[in-house]
Amino acid sequence: MKKLINEPADVVDEMLDGMVAAYPDQVRRLDGIEVLVREDAPVDGKVGIVSGGGSGHEPTHAGYLGEGMLDGAAAGEVFTSPTADQLQEMIQACDGGEGVLCVVKNYEGDVMNFDTAAELAEMEGVDVAQVVVNDDVAVEDSLYTSGRRGVCGTILVHKAAGAKAAQGGSLEEVQAVAEKVIDNVGTMGMALTSCVTPEKGEPTFDLGEDEIELGIGIHGEPGTERTDVMSADEVTEHLTERVLEDLALDEGQEVVTIVNGMGGTPLSELFIVNRKLQEVLGEHGLETWDAWVGDYMTSLDMMGCSITVCAVDDELKELIGAPCDTPALTVRE
Amino acid sequence: MKKLINEPADVVDEMLDGMVAAYPDQVRRLDGIEVLVREDAPVDGKVGIVSGGGSGHEPTHAGYLGEGMLDGAAAGEVFTSPTADQLQEMIQACDGGEGVLCVVKNYEGDVMNFDTAAELAEMEGVDVAQVVVNDDVAVEDSLYTSGRRGVCGTILVHKAAGAKAAQGGSLEEVQAVAEKVIDNVGTMGMALTSCVTPEKGEPTFDLGEDEIELGIGIHGEPGTERTDVMSADEVTEHLTERVLEDLALDEGQEVVTIVNGMGGTPLSELFIVNRKLQEVLGEHGLETWDAWVGDYMTSLDMMGCSITVCAVDDELKELIGAPCDTPALTVRE
Repeated sequence: MKKLINEPADVVDEMLDGMVAAYPDQVRRLDGIEVLVREDAPVDGKVGIVSGGGSGHEPTHAGYLGEGMLDGAAAGEVFTSPTADQLQEMIQACDGGEGVLCVVKNYEGDVMNFDTAAELAEMEGVDVAQVVVNDDVAVEDSLYTSGRRGVCGTILVHKAAGAKAAQGGSLEEVQAVAEKVIDNVGTMGMALTSCVTPEKGEPTFDLGEDEIELGIGIHGEPGTERTDVMSADEVTEHLTERVLEDLALDEGQEVVTIVNGMGGTPLSELFIVNRKLQEVLGEHGLETWDAWVGDYMTSLDMMGCSITVCAVDDELKELIGAPCDTPALTVRE
Repeated sequence: MKKLINEPADVVDEMLDGMVAAYPDQVRRLDGIEVLVREDAPVDGKVGIVSGGGSGHEPTHAGYLGEGMLDGAAAGEVFTSPTADQLQEMIQACDGGEGVLCVVKNYEGDVMNFDTAAELAEMEGVDVAQVVVNDDVAVEDSLYTSGRRGVCGTILVHKAAGAKAAQGGSLEEVQAVAEKVIDNVGTMGMALTSCVTPEKGEPTFDLGEDEIELGIGIHGEPGTERTDVMSADEVTEHLTERVLEDLALDEGQEVVTIVNGMGGTPLSELFIVNRKLQEVLGEHGLETWDAWVGDYMTSLDMMGCSITVCAVDDELKELIGAPCDTPALTVRE
């Protein structure tokens, strides 16, 4: 398998330097570690919001650094949790005096290392709160995870909590907003092909020429079933019905949706999925308030997509629609 | 090869409907044809700017519809020029009384059909001007093209001309800005893998497991050479040197750069390329004023990238940095 890389061991380091070279006014790298923060971090008087996890999901998380979203993003090696030391340093670098919220995707290593880092930072006098995102409705317990996995719904947590912090919310209020998103969001993914990690250089799992995997995780963890190739409409219907079953929304409920590409999927295909998604939501009597389509949380070069649905009330609409300015997501006033 | 589509013949139609379903406040579809326009088109008293070409390059062009960029985008079948009828209807729908600029990528079918469409629209009383983008420095004459091909530099034409039109520039002034970008921009691309069209369902060209193609076109047209796999740094150096040789810039010149993904390339790899690109530009004494990294003009699921360099003066910096609000590119005040 071919990749645009130099040494596999240098991928994360060089990627982070390439991001700083692209957005020097927006992000900077903490000396000697694999953490990017807002260029102006810590922001005095604002609750800091940080996230992190294994690399390979770009633009997650560093793409969401900036006004109205994240203050810090830690990048582990590909599909590997960042260390507790990295995370502690990030938390302290993002504390503007009002405390720091850690947004953690539910993988055992991430949860464990964020727990340790939070304890260490608290010993240094930082108020730390934590939320764990577990939006993947496909499976309970999986490779790397007890309970449900945290996937693309995390970006809506970054957006809503980030807006609340930018508006001057307290640590408790920002955490409450993050929890509200987590309570109201569901996601399910699928893959047409496996991802290929730089270290291994070959597919993480085998998928036949006529097979797809439903309920896939963002590291290629097994899903709910392997089936014959289905049409885009069939795939969309399957994923959406599973998400809606989990959310059990009332008719007339407003929602934000994400059709997320896994990294190797042409944008045209994501729009074809979005077309059917909106049709299915309409059949359920749901009202789409905002629809996002693009690569938000990827799995290297995997072909496939995930569908996220999040029920929104007036508060979440105001926060998700609020201005932000980050490399991967910009919302104007 | 597997794709998230329904019938291959429905790809463009369904993709356009999926875009409208995602951005109903920003774009609308002209009845019965494969053209999207700004939701509020025609904008009274503003020069209209339209573009178009074969599909398969998303987000090009419809992703750039909106305030500060395009008014209309015509989508041909995959890698096939839109018809003159479609183009004429688009031009007329985007005329707010001040005339319409057509931004055409240099492919024979596109140029011919835009020429015909412009003549027909002029007979209906619309002032039409046209610019042809030919930024690909790799080859003179190619499959589908006499002269140089038009590729990712086109997005900077949309951005600068779009800003000029939004500021109230006349048709002549908007055209002059577009020509200034075209005179100062160069691009070169490469592929790790071939794209796969929905109709054919298999690779457009054969590339060995250890080969890459330099100077590739955005439809998989042949490039300058096929070589053994190279590192990201070697690829970047090769592409950048070729572009700089063509542009022949003075030391101290400010530039805007684009590292553009071909559709199947992980974002992490594009940042690794950007890191080296900025290093090479620094060695040449050039000053990067703005660096873009992402999928701007793709070739379906092709893995690879292109590098664009555009010399900018105060006028172009002001216009490229001006606010815009489109599905694929948003710049805040």
